[in-house]
Amino acid sequence: MLKLSALFTDLYELTMAQGYFKYGMNTHCVFDMFFRRQPFGGGFSIFAGVEDLLEDLQEFRFSPEDLEYLEGLGYFEQSFLDYLESFRFRGDVYAIPEGTPVFPMEPLVRIHGTLIETQLIEGMLLNVLNFQTLIATKTARIYLASNKGRILEFGLRRAQGPDGAMSASRAAYIGGAAATSNTLAGKLYGIPVAGTMAHSWVMAFDSEEEAFHRYAELYPDRAILLIDTFNTLQSGIKNAIKIGQKLKALGKPFGVRLDSGDIQYLSTEVRAALDRAGLQDAKIAVSNELNEEIIYHLVASKCPIDIWGVGTHLVTGGGDPAFSGVYKLCAREKGGKLIPTMKVSDNPEKSTNPGVKQVYRFHDKEGHPLADLITFADSPPPTEGPTLFHHPYMDYRRFTLCPEGPVIPLLEKRMENGSLTLPHPPLPAIRNRALEELDKLDPTYTRILNPHVYKVSISEEVKQVKVSMINQMLLRS
Amino acid sequence: MLKLSALFTDLYELTMAQGYFKYGMNTHCVFDMFFRRQPFGGGFSIFAGVEDLLEDLQEFRFSPEDLEYLEGLGYFEQSFLDYLESFRFRGDVYAIPEGTPVFPMEPLVRIHGTLIETQLIEGMLLNVLNFQTLIATKTARIYLASNKGRILEFGLRRAQGPDGAMSASRAAYIGGAAATSNTLAGKLYGIPVAGTMAHSWVMAFDSEEEAFHRYAELYPDRAILLIDTFNTLQSGIKNAIKIGQKLKALGKPFGVRLDSGDIQYLSTEVRAALDRAGLQDAKIAVSNELNEEIIYHLVASKCPIDIWGVGTHLVTGGGDPAFSGVYKLCAREKGGKLIPTMKVSDNPEKSTNPGVKQVYRFHDKEGHPLADLITFADSPPPTEGPTLFHHPYMDYRRFTLCPEGPVIPLLEKRMENGSLTLPHPPLPAIRNRALEELDKLDPTYTRILNPHVYKVSISEEVKQVKVSMINQMLLRS
Repeated sequence: MLKLSALFTDLYELTMAQGYFKYGMNTHCVFDMFFRRQPFGGGFSIFAGVEDLLEDLQEFRFSPEDLEYLEGLGYFEQSFLDYLESFRFRGDVYAIPEGTPVFPMEPLVRIHGTLIETQLIEGMLLNVLNFQTLIATKTARIYLASNKGRILEFGLRRAQGPDGAMSASRAAYIGGAAATSNTLAGKLYGIPVAGTMAHSWVMAFDSEEEAFHRYAELYPDRAILLIDTFNTLQSGIKNAIKIGQKLKALGKPFGVRLDSGDIQYLSTEVRAALDRAGLQDAKIAVSNELNEEIIYHLVASKCPIDIWGVGTHLVTGGGDPAFSGVYKLCAREKGGKLIPTMKVSDNPEKSTNPGVKQVYRFHDKEGHPLADLITFADSPPPTEGPTLFHHPYMDYRRFTLCPEGPVIPLLEKRMENGSLTLPHPPLPAIRNRALEELDKLDPTYTRILNPHVYKVSISEEVKQVKVSMINQMLLRS
Repeated sequence: MLKLSALFTDLYELTMAQGYFKYGMNTHCVFDMFFRRQPFGGGFSIFAGVEDLLEDLQEFRFSPEDLEYLEGLGYFEQSFLDYLESFRFRGDVYAIPEGTPVFPMEPLVRIHGTLIETQLIEGMLLNVLNFQTLIATKTARIYLASNKGRILEFGLRRAQGPDGAMSASRAAYIGGAAATSNTLAGKLYGIPVAGTMAHSWVMAFDSEEEAFHRYAELYPDRAILLIDTFNTLQSGIKNAIKIGQKLKALGKPFGVRLDSGDIQYLSTEVRAALDRAGLQDAKIAVSNELNEEIIYHLVASKCPIDIWGVGTHLVTGGGDPAFSGVYKLCAREKGGKLIPTMKVSDNPEKSTNPGVKQVYRFHDKEGHPLADLITFADSPPPTEGPTLFHHPYMDYRRFTLCPEGPVIPLLEKRMENGSLTLPHPPLPAIRNRALEELDKLDPTYTRILNPHVYKVSISEEVKQVKVSMINQMLLRS
C-alpha cells in the first residue's frame, strides 16, 4: 500500500491551478460537498469519513519526488512548481459529524480557502467521503434489516483493494457492524475482531467430530462451529451438539455457523435440534452472499438467527458501488466580499444552492427529526417563531414549521487555517451517534424498500437569492 | 493510507493457524486460486494483480506492534506468537502472467507451502487479485465496446477508497485504458496521465470565450475545451471553433469535450460544426456515467467520438463490484507425498479439481486460442497426438483435439521459497500482452452480450482421479 500525497488529485486540477496561479485568480472561495440521490433506493445515508479526511488534509503536500514527476510532464512552469513546493492546505473546514443521518442536497462539508487549495483537494475529499458514506449506509441498512442484530463484517477478500477493505471495515463499524474479520483494521481502528472457522479446518482433521473437539479445546470461550462441510443435518449438527453439551457443562458459550444451503430451512431445523438437546442458549450464525433484502426476508419469516456474517455486499455496496457526492462552488470573493455563486442546469434538480450555508435539523418534542432547513450561515438561527420551508427547486411546494423541539445546526467548524479546531471523536462514539440517530428517525424513513422522503428545504432568504440569480442568468442569455 | 502487514488477514486464519501449530499439523500443501463465473455476464476476464501480490508476499510479516496487538486479544499463546515473530512467506508461487485472458475453473495461481503460510496469505491474495482482475476485465470490455478507442480512466473521486483508486488505475491501464487522471498513479506506476478542464474553469472567467482563450494560451499542445457549461450548440462549440481555428493556424492539435446532454445528438451536431469550420482534425471527447453498454450503442450508431472518459463504472465494476475468485486446497502432504484433495459439493460446479495442476492453452495454426486443458503438472505436456478434453463436471461431454498450433503452459513459476524467480515485467509489456491476447480471441468470446463460452476442460488423468475420489466419498457416506 502507498502513502498518499497531494498528487492524489486529478491532473486537470493541477493544470487549472497553474492557470489560476499565472493569471492572478487565486481568490478566496467556498465549496459545498453534497449528494443528489440516496444510494440503494433508501431513505437515508450515514455520513462517514470526516476524521480520515481531516488527517489526510494535514498531510496533503508535494514531496520533492512529486515535484520532479510534475516537472517531467513538461507543462508546468518553474514558478508554479515553486509554489507547489510550499503548498499546504490552509483552509477552513465545516462538517456534519460522522455518524449523522444525511439527506440529498444539504451541504455535508463546507470548505473555505483559496481557489487553488479548494480545488486540489476535490478528488481526495470525494474519494474518502463517498466511499465511507456508501459503506456506513449499506451497513446501517443491513443492521436495521437484521432487526438490530449482531453483524460481522467479513469482506476483506472481496473488497476493492487493500484500502477498500480497511476503509470499509471502519465505515461498517460506524454503520452498525459489531466486529470485523480484518485483523489489521482491528489493530489500527480499535474495532472488535471476530471469526469462526473455515471448511479447511474441518477438512484438515480425520473427522468432523475431531475438528470440532480440537477447536473447542483450543478456544473454549469462542467456539462457533461450522457445521455444513459434509452434511449439516446428518453430520454437522450432530457432531456439534456433542461438543456443545460438553461446553454447556463447563458453563461456556457455544454456537454453530451455516455457510451454504437454504438458510431458512436449515436454521429452523438446527434450532430445533439444539433445543431438543437442551442447548437453548446456543447461537446460530449464518453467512453466504447475504445482503439487506435477504436478511430482511429471513427476519420477517422468523428464522432463528443470532449472528450475521456479511462480506461482499457490505464492503462494496453491491449493485450500487459508488456514492454520488459532488463538490460545487457556492461563493466567491469579489471586491473583498464573498458573493454567492450557483450552477444553473437545464435539470432543475442539478442546479445548486448559492451562498455560504448552514443546515438546521428541526426535531419534535420527543427529539425525532422532522425536517432539515438550509439557510445562510450568517442568518439568525431559525430557533423561534414560524419558519418557511421551500422545496429546493419546485416552485409552489412549501410549508411552515414552528420549533417545538430542538433546532440543531449540523455543520461544525473542524479546521481553521489548516489546523484542527476540535479533537477527533473516538470511533465508538461515532458509532453510537449513528445508532442513536437512526433510532430517532421515524421508521418510515429507514424502511429498506420505498421509504418516505425526508424533507430538506431551503429558507426564504436562500430561495430569494436563488430565484434572483436564475432570473439574472435568464436575462443575460 | 496504511502500510500493509501480515495482520491484513481474516482473524480466523490466525486462530486456525494456532491450532495447526499446536497440534503439529503444519504440513506441506498446495492451494489453487480460481474463479467460477465471468463477471459482467462476459466471456473472458483479464488476469491482473500478480506483480503487486508478489511484492506484498515479500513484505508479509508481523511487526512487534502487530504481535503486541495479537497478544492483547488474549487467546494466542506465547509459543505461537514467537513463531509469528519470525514468520515469513517461504512458499512457491506459480501464476498465469498478468494480462492473460482467463476462464472459469482453471487455476490462475498455485501456491505451495506449509498449511499455515498458505492460509495466512489467503485474504490478501484474494483481495489483490480479485479487485485488479475485476477492473482490468471491465476496462477491456469498455475498450472493445469503443472499438479499441482511446479510453481515459477518470475514476479517482468515485473509487472505493484511496487504494481502490490506485489499484484501479493500474488495472485499468492493463485492460486497455490509454491514460489516467490520477496523478499519483501516473507517478507511481508510470501510467500516462491525461485531463481536460472542469466547468469550474469556465465559470472562473468572465466569459466562456476568455476561459477557452486562456486555456489554449497556457496549453497550446493539449487544448481539449469543455463546451457544455452554458449551451453546447449555441455557445460552447461556437467559442471553441474560434480557438480551434487559431490553433490550427499554428499547426496545433485541438479538441472539445461533452459532459452532459444527449451524446449521440450533440456529438453529431458538434462534428458537423467542426467540419464546416474546416476543423476536420479536431477530436471529440465525451464523458458522463459511461459504461460498455452505452459506449457500444454510441459506436454502433456511428457517433463521431474519438475519446472516452470513463469513471465510476470503470473503477468500481458498476453493478458487479466483486470478482468471485476463491482459494482452495488441492493437495496435501501425507507420508512424505503430496496427495490430491478435493471439495465435493452438492452443486457439481462447486466441486473442485484435485491435485497439483497445470493449464495448457491450445491454439489453431494462426495462433487463435481454441480451448484450455487442465492436467497434472507432472504429466507429460499434451503437445503431441490426440488429447481428450472432458467437461469439468458434466459426465458425457467431451471432445478430442490434435495440436495444430502452439500448446502453451500458462502457469509460470514466479517465486521459490519466498524469493522471486523472475523479474517483474514492465507495466506496458503487461498491457501489450492483454491487448494482443484479446486480439487473438475469436470475437464471439469477447462479445459484450451473450458471448460464446470458451472451453476449459480437464484431462483424462484429472477426470479419473476426480471420479475415483467422488466414488470413495460416496462409499464412505
